[in-house]
Amino acid sequence: MNSYQYDLVVIGAGPGGMEAAQYAGQKGLKVALVSNTKIGGRAVWSSLVPSKAWLALAEKIDGLRQLSGMGANAKGYELDLGQLRQRIGEQSQLASGIRLKELEAAGVHFNFGNGKITATHTVKVSAESEPAYSLSARNIIIASGSGPRFLPDAKPNKNRIYAPKIAPAIPEIPKSLVVAGGGVTGTEYAYAFAALGSKVTVLQSGDQLLPRVDAEVAEAFRLYLERHYNITFHPGKAIRSMEQQGDKVVATTISNQTFEADYGFIAIGRTPDLSFFEPEVLPLELTASKMVAIDEFGRTNIPNIYAVGDITGTPMTANRASMQARVAVQHILEGDNRKLRPGYFIEAAYTNPPIAQIGDMQAEAGTEFIVRPFNGLLKANMMGEAEGMLKLKIRKNDGHILGAAGFGAHFTDVLGIIQLAMNNDISFEKLRAIPLAHPSISEVISVL
Amino acid sequence: MNSYQYDLVVIGAGPGGMEAAQYAGQKGLKVALVSNTKIGGRAVWSSLVPSKAWLALAEKIDGLRQLSGMGANAKGYELDLGQLRQRIGEQSQLASGIRLKELEAAGVHFNFGNGKITATHTVKVSAESEPAYSLSARNIIIASGSGPRFLPDAKPNKNRIYAPKIAPAIPEIPKSLVVAGGGVTGTEYAYAFAALGSKVTVLQSGDQLLPRVDAEVAEAFRLYLERHYNITFHPGKAIRSMEQQGDKVVATTISNQTFEADYGFIAIGRTPDLSFFEPEVLPLELTASKMVAIDEFGRTNIPNIYAVGDITGTPMTANRASMQARVAVQHILEGDNRKLRPGYFIEAAYTNPPIAQIGDMQAEAGTEFIVRPFNGLLKANMMGEAEGMLKLKIRKNDGHILGAAGFGAHFTDVLGIIQLAMNNDISFEKLRAIPLAHPSISEVISVL
Repeated sequence: MNSYQYDLVVIGAGPGGMEAAQYAGQKGLKVALVSNTKIGGRAVWSSLVPSKAWLALAEKIDGLRQLSGMGANAKGYELDLGQLRQRIGEQSQLASGIRLKELEAAGVHFNFGNGKITATHTVKVSAESEPAYSLSARNIIIASGSGPRFLPDAKPNKNRIYAPKIAPAIPEIPKSLVVAGGGVTGTEYAYAFAALGSKVTVLQSGDQLLPRVDAEVAEAFRLYLERHYNITFHPGKAIRSMEQQGDKVVATTISNQTFEADYGFIAIGRTPDLSFFEPEVLPLELTASKMVAIDEFGRTNIPNIYAVGDITGTPMTANRASMQARVAVQHILEGDNRKLRPGYFIEAAYTNPPIAQIGDMQAEAGTEFIVRPFNGLLKANMMGEAEGMLKLKIRKNDGHILGAAGFGAHFTDVLGIIQLAMNNDISFEKLRAIPLAHPSISEVISVL
Repeated sequence: MNSYQYDLVVIGAGPGGMEAAQYAGQKGLKVALVSNTKIGGRAVWSSLVPSKAWLALAEKIDGLRQLSGMGANAKGYELDLGQLRQRIGEQSQLASGIRLKELEAAGVHFNFGNGKITATHTVKVSAESEPAYSLSARNIIIASGSGPRFLPDAKPNKNRIYAPKIAPAIPEIPKSLVVAGGGVTGTEYAYAFAALGSKVTVLQSGDQLLPRVDAEVAEAFRLYLERHYNITFHPGKAIRSMEQQGDKVVATTISNQTFEADYGFIAIGRTPDLSFFEPEVLPLELTASKMVAIDEFGRTNIPNIYAVGDITGTPMTANRASMQARVAVQHILEGDNRKLRPGYFIEAAYTNPPIAQIGDMQAEAGTEFIVRPFNGLLKANMMGEAEGMLKLKIRKNDGHILGAAGFGAHFTDVLGIIQLAMNNDISFEKLRAIPLAHPSISEVISVL
């Protein structure tokens, strides 16, 4: 078996793997990237880009409705899901192509095939089209990501029961849709289908829509979706099965309640892809929930092997994966350096408007909350998107921002300003003294 | 004449005056606000809000066009300028009402009437409905703003020749429109009418569209407007006259070139409103261009009188006025304190997409420029708004950002992140290390 020598081998070409490989390449390391998907990984090819295309369509349809009252009346629209399918393909290709170019510019070698760690410094690459070969490296970063989780009696069938990856294959916008899952993905698709005309029912195991988001913000957002999109949420209703019965789909909860709709959609979570190793060959430590155990720098129990992204636990988001990737590469380059500790990162659902959070929003002694509605913002009113809120958690003694959550137009960009402040210990007082553009959504921070 | 005692009298209820009064009130000063307009000033009632309503309509119409290819085809729209007029009234009322409430909460007393400074500590208030009275105060902040500038032979006539304030009265979207002025206002209306279907020709005195913006960015934006909206720009063509001839408008340049269109629009600048004083009574120093001369804290030559906003010069923007207002109030409260110096603020035209700049973009030794296109951003591509750019000016020795300019979706919010970095001496290296939300427009900063 041929063998090639590198400084770093990265397994997985999704957001975490791409970021790790590119950043390491730019920093001068000789890097090999191994993946059995094209550049972009499952995120680009089957989850993130497809969902964003559905969401972009839904958002433009929202815009068409908002037009009324602003100075024109739209005459309606005709859906063309063929366009959407084509766009998903094109956008995936585009996103993948842009990243491939950047990776090539950073000198990264891309290896298409299954990557398996066969020793602490060795990754075996197998692809159907060529003989297997091995890559040796001082360091390995595992970024193999995750795949959707289904239940024995709740699986997509591409007929009436769908899931994110195959959503584009849906032949029509369902008249009624039952969505299993109230996390980020379930919420995004529930919104998208509702905006496109479905009567959507969401069944979720937890008590709160988007359980990782501040409860007050999540509840305000749930009410927003209920009011504007007529989505019905059922908390504490985890599904046990989802089956097609003729032209209908019946979802049954663990408490034996049934919900019927024209179509079903399953987004109940993701499981880490651990196909990169055999426990007998590599003594890699896993957590109780079968995630790869890591320290704050991304190191596994095997000192030269790092893991980033979904295989290391929740939240399984591109943002977290990218941040972890940079921290891991920095640690490989510089060794122990407390300054490398991960900073605050944003968690978001890219509905319209988006809902997002950064940092911790638990109430605790010595902190206070500030809530600011969007309806006091000229920009939000002018856009016809005056619903929204920003909630901040401030430490009383020094005014530092410990967390922020909310929803509203441009919200993920607005949180970028707060993220920068949080990562650089800029107090809320100092932050709000900055005269942000008027009118802009970011003024929600600085408004007096 | 009755007389009332205050800590601070603010003349003018536009962005600068409102901010000064509210901020001072919140800081515990007893504040009187004098204005012959309702709260909001000319900005809310005749320039900023009306233009933003036109722009919001144009942007939604853009969205309708962008729909095609994303998964649906819009069936067109019917303009209803009555809706737009009504919305401008409602939004002005809303913006004014929100601010009035905030001012009242800050304990500010609003005095409707003409304010005239009759002595260094005295402002006389005259209104038709009641006897004149006077307000005395330790300090006075003048924020009387500006009004549109016209020429003897180029004035709006509310028939075929319009200007921002009376734009809502236009009976139809012109088939062809000649716009005089290539500054922020001229550009905003040129875009809005073009997006709504007019064939727009812009005549401007300067060589560059938006002369205060970085030349490379302004030129890229000009080409964008030309390509997508078929707007024709004529640099170096200041108008001498604009007259209606039957159903046509003829604009004549100082070089005697004529341009004909169905309608004309004049946005050639603004002049400060100096009606608050008589030079014989108050020895207030003016600059050569008849602006109120101030120091970096907003002090005029009369020590207890400050001036902020449009009467102090260009750029005549709400952002600058607000920032100056805070600096002036801080100076009143704390006296000389170098830390109070004004920070960087954003200048923007709120077209779709917006174009904006912060700081200085002149090439100089020891600095370098970085240009990042939006077409590498997943979010911009997904939104169907992949055209745009960010240009940064970086100081080489310490990596500090000295300026940023560009255009693109959400650009004013993205600039907020850079503004915070610039005002807190956060280097570009440190800024780009922050993992901003993915996918978001702000990633244009952090993309590897």
